[in-house]
Amino acid sequence: MTITVLRTADAWYVSTDSGAVPIDTDAATTAELLGDRAAIEAARGRDGGVPVESLALVSPVTAPCRVVAQMTNFASHVKDAGMDPATVPLTFFRKASGSISGPTADVVKPAHVRFLDYEVEIGLVIGRELPVGSDVTDANLADVVAGLVVTNDVSARDVQLPKTQFYESKSYPTFTPVGPFLVLLEAAELRRLGDLRLRLSVNGEVRQDSVVAGDMIYRPVRTLRELTRFQRMDVGDLLLTGTPAGTALSAPPKPVEIIGQLLPPALKWKAFFRSQSRNAKYLADGDVVAASVATDDGAIDLGTQRTVVRYA
Amino acid sequence: MTITVLRTADAWYVSTDSGAVPIDTDAATTAELLGDRAAIEAARGRDGGVPVESLALVSPVTAPCRVVAQMTNFASHVKDAGMDPATVPLTFFRKASGSISGPTADVVKPAHVRFLDYEVEIGLVIGRELPVGSDVTDANLADVVAGLVVTNDVSARDVQLPKTQFYESKSYPTFTPVGPFLVLLEAAELRRLGDLRLRLSVNGEVRQDSVVAGDMIYRPVRTLRELTRFQRMDVGDLLLTGTPAGTALSAPPKPVEIIGQLLPPALKWKAFFRSQSRNAKYLADGDVVAASVATDDGAIDLGTQRTVVRYA
Repeated sequence: MTITVLRTADAWYVSTDSGAVPIDTDAATTAELLGDRAAIEAARGRDGGVPVESLALVSPVTAPCRVVAQMTNFASHVKDAGMDPATVPLTFFRKASGSISGPTADVVKPAHVRFLDYEVEIGLVIGRELPVGSDVTDANLADVVAGLVVTNDVSARDVQLPKTQFYESKSYPTFTPVGPFLVLLEAAELRRLGDLRLRLSVNGEVRQDSVVAGDMIYRPVRTLRELTRFQRMDVGDLLLTGTPAGTALSAPPKPVEIIGQLLPPALKWKAFFRSQSRNAKYLADGDVVAASVATDDGAIDLGTQRTVVRYA
Repeated sequence: MTITVLRTADAWYVSTDSGAVPIDTDAATTAELLGDRAAIEAARGRDGGVPVESLALVSPVTAPCRVVAQMTNFASHVKDAGMDPATVPLTFFRKASGSISGPTADVVKPAHVRFLDYEVEIGLVIGRELPVGSDVTDANLADVVAGLVVTNDVSARDVQLPKTQFYESKSYPTFTPVGPFLVLLEAAELRRLGDLRLRLSVNGEVRQDSVVAGDMIYRPVRTLRELTRFQRMDVGDLLLTGTPAGTALSAPPKPVEIIGQLLPPALKWKAFFRSQSRNAKYLADGDVVAASVATDDGAIDLGTQRTVVRYA
C-alpha cells in the first residue's frame, strides 16, 4: 500500500482512513523525514486524524535540494515541439530549488515575462545517496526513488526560447509547484509507473491528458543511469521527468520554421512571439491551474494541485 | 593589495613575501573561510612561509556549492560561434559542483565523449548572501564578489550540441578545474576587471588570449542583477563569466549551417562531427592545458593552472 505524506508549515502528516495523522518527528527537511521511516510507520497506525482539507499544505519536497529536469521526454510533446521521438536525446537541465512552491500557492509571473506556460510532470523524489557512477537497475529502483509528487514545470517561453538554455526561464520563484502529496511506493507499485495518467486543466478546460505507458520515452532506470554519469543525487533531491503534449507553446509549421532559421535570431524571435500573442492558451492573470497524476484505478494517487496565476 | 588564498587537502594558506603562510582557522569550506577574515589577516602578518611550489594545491573553491556559468559572453567567442554580439542574450546554465577539481588535477575524458574542449574563464566567488531580488550595484559589487579564480569550463562538444542544454556536457567530474589562487579584491582592484587578460595554451601553443575590456559583453553588475532575478546565491558560490575566442569548436561557414538546418537533427550532427574529426584542436590524451588570468602589470594575478588530459 502506498504511503501518502503531507506537509504544512510546521508539521508532517500521513494520510490514513481517519484523516491526516501528524508524524512525531523532528525532521525539518524531506531528507530527514525519509530517514525517519519509523515515525512515518508509527503515524500510520494511529487514530485521530484531521481532515486533509483542513490543512494548509506546502510542498512536501523542501528546498534547498537539487532540482533536475528532463527535456522533451514524452513522444506527444516531442512531436508537438516539431522534433522526432525516435532521435530526441536524453537531456537534462537544472531548475533553481528556490522555484519550489506549494500545491495551492500562487504562480507569480514576473513583470518582464510575457508568455507563461505550464507543464504537468511526475517528480521522482530520491531516496538514497547516488554518487557519480551509481548503478541503477530495475532491482534497486524502489530504493533509489523514495516516492513521487505532482509537479508543474512552469516556463517563461519568451525567456526560454531566445536564451536556448532552459535554466532561467523555469527557475523564477513559484515556477515549480510541488504536491499536494509525496507518495511513497513499494517496488511493485513503482513498477506501475506506466499506468500513471498526467492531467492538467486551466479554468476547467483540459489541456494535458496522457498516460505514461504510451508516451514517456526515457524511463527512470535509464534516466537515472545517465544522470549519475555526471551528477550525484542525494536523499530528497527531485527529478522532473517531462511533460506530455498540450502546453500553450507548440512548434510552428515546418516551412515557417525553415524561413525563420534564415533570419537573424532577434528578428526570428520577434516574428515568432508576434504570432504567439494571438495564442490564448498562455496563462493569464487569475487563471486556475489544476494538475494531477494518478492511475485510473486510483491505487496510486499523487493528488491534485490547484494554483492561481498572478501577474506581478 | 590583493590577498592570495591557497588551499591544500588539509589547510588554507595566504601567499606572502616569505611564502605561503598557513591560516589558523577551522574553516572546512570556502564560505567558512571567507567568514573568518580575521584569521586570513592574521596569517598575512606572520613570517615563516613555505614555498608555494612545495604545496599540493587543490581547488580554493570547495564543493558542494552552486556553479552557475554564462553562455557566450565574449564578443570574439560569439562571432566564432556564428552569432551576433549585438543581439546575444545574457544567458546562464548550471554546472554540477562535483565537476570542480584542482589546478593540477587531471582532466578525465569519459569513455563515451569524443570531442573534448577547453574554455578559460574568470570565476567570481560570491562573498555575501544574495536572495532573489538583491540589488547589485557598482557601489556594492566588492561586497557581493569576494574574489576571483581561474576556471576552465571543460566541455564535451559531442554531448553539448545535440542535447542543446549545456548542463551535462560541462558537468562530468574534473570538468571545472579551479585555481590555483583565490584572489580577494578590494573595490578599487575589482574595478580593474577590464584589464584582466585570459590566456590558455595547449602543449605550449597559445589558443586563447584576450583582455576583458574589449571583449566581455555582460559585466558582473549587470550579470548578477539578472541572475538574482531567479537564483539566490550564497557565500562561496561560483559564477563563471564566459570565455573568449580560440576554443577547438568554431561555427561552420554560414551556407553549410543553413543546409544543416534543413537536415533532421541526427543527420545534421553526424555530418558536423564527421567534419570535426579532422579538427586537431580538440584535447588529446596527455595534452597539457595551461590557463591563466592576470593584469599585464601583474597587480592582479590569479595564477596559472596546469592540468593534464587523461582519456578514461
